[in-house]
Amino acid sequence: MKGHFITFEGPDGAGKTTIINEIFKQIPQDKQTKILVTREPGGSKISETIRQIILDPANKEMDDRTEALLYAAQRGQHVNETILPALSTGKTVFSDRYIDSSLAYQGVGRDLGIDDVKEINNFATNNLTPDLTLFFDLPPEVGLARIQKLRPDQEDRLEQEKLTFHQKVYEGYQELVKRYPDRIQVVDASQTIPEVTAQSVKILKRKFPDLF
Amino acid sequence: MKGHFITFEGPDGAGKTTIINEIFKQIPQDKQTKILVTREPGGSKISETIRQIILDPANKEMDDRTEALLYAAQRGQHVNETILPALSTGKTVFSDRYIDSSLAYQGVGRDLGIDDVKEINNFATNNLTPDLTLFFDLPPEVGLARIQKLRPDQEDRLEQEKLTFHQKVYEGYQELVKRYPDRIQVVDASQTIPEVTAQSVKILKRKFPDLF
Repeated sequence: MKGHFITFEGPDGAGKTTIINEIFKQIPQDKQTKILVTREPGGSKISETIRQIILDPANKEMDDRTEALLYAAQRGQHVNETILPALSTGKTVFSDRYIDSSLAYQGVGRDLGIDDVKEINNFATNNLTPDLTLFFDLPPEVGLARIQKLRPDQEDRLEQEKLTFHQKVYEGYQELVKRYPDRIQVVDASQTIPEVTAQSVKILKRKFPDLF
Repeated sequence: MKGHFITFEGPDGAGKTTIINEIFKQIPQDKQTKILVTREPGGSKISETIRQIILDPANKEMDDRTEALLYAAQRGQHVNETILPALSTGKTVFSDRYIDSSLAYQGVGRDLGIDDVKEINNFATNNLTPDLTLFFDLPPEVGLARIQKLRPDQEDRLEQEKLTFHQKVYEGYQELVKRYPDRIQVVDASQTIPEVTAQSVKILKRKFPDLF
């Protein structure tokens, strides 16, 4: 028995965390216990420690390859300590970010190449691929404006990057949507929260009717 | 102009740090300023922070792949922030451990495979390979006994591993010596400190007469 592995992706400020919570509320209460909601970077004690290094704005001198490897390292721990044990007991896992984030942010945003970054992540995760990925599609300038409004002066090291970086990340996501059309479903994240939630739930119900 | 990149490898307790210091003393004083001595894991602020996560005995649940990726991450930072800048100004770099440690400890000791671990390290270091590697050859049980005598109760997470792990690491090093006979030179580390130093200096003088 194996649960479904569903990931949520998109630029900073696309509302992933909010929408995941809204989706969760729409799942019947007796089925909510069969769902594990987790996030990256993080999801376990060691991963959270690695997360602090990655996101600390003081680590300005961080090498791009080191950044990519730290993301892969926390992901390996996240998969082995949190995601796989849950899936193996039949739970469905919702992960706020996963490999696609590294492909977009480090592969394209940092110019390390999608293929090379994918290789180290395949090593980290032993090739664990999501059954479905929802991509919350939002122009990066809109996402950044939302973040600056919601929590000014609290941006992490990645969020602090210039708009040109976030535009490259967004192009990276577009490339991934083209590469993996079966796995990645696009949701228009410029809509209201109830609308984005409804569109997401519709996709999930179609693909995994047993969840609801 | 580019300096020499020399690495020092061997099982825990082989005396690498001591011998590196002894070799350094034998270099004429006016040439010592042209040498940078560094170590792994560590060598820069971010790398030292990653080192703490790797070696902390409290992190017992660390996944083997996460461990390998963290070593590669600190190495990428070490190369870009410390080693490459020194080499590019013509300095010679002595590094206490480098990629071969990961190939022996994670590739063989943790059964992740030499080739897979080499791939993530090539990514991390942009393929920077040492010009020469001195392997301090010592049976692992002798090395472990030395450590327990020198600093009992202060072993890090890797040193705490059972003897069978350290035996596999040792076999890993033997495999590397076979794979890279031109790059890796074997030094008998069961001798006295002056003898090990003399043998090392002899190899270095033959290969890099300009150092002395």
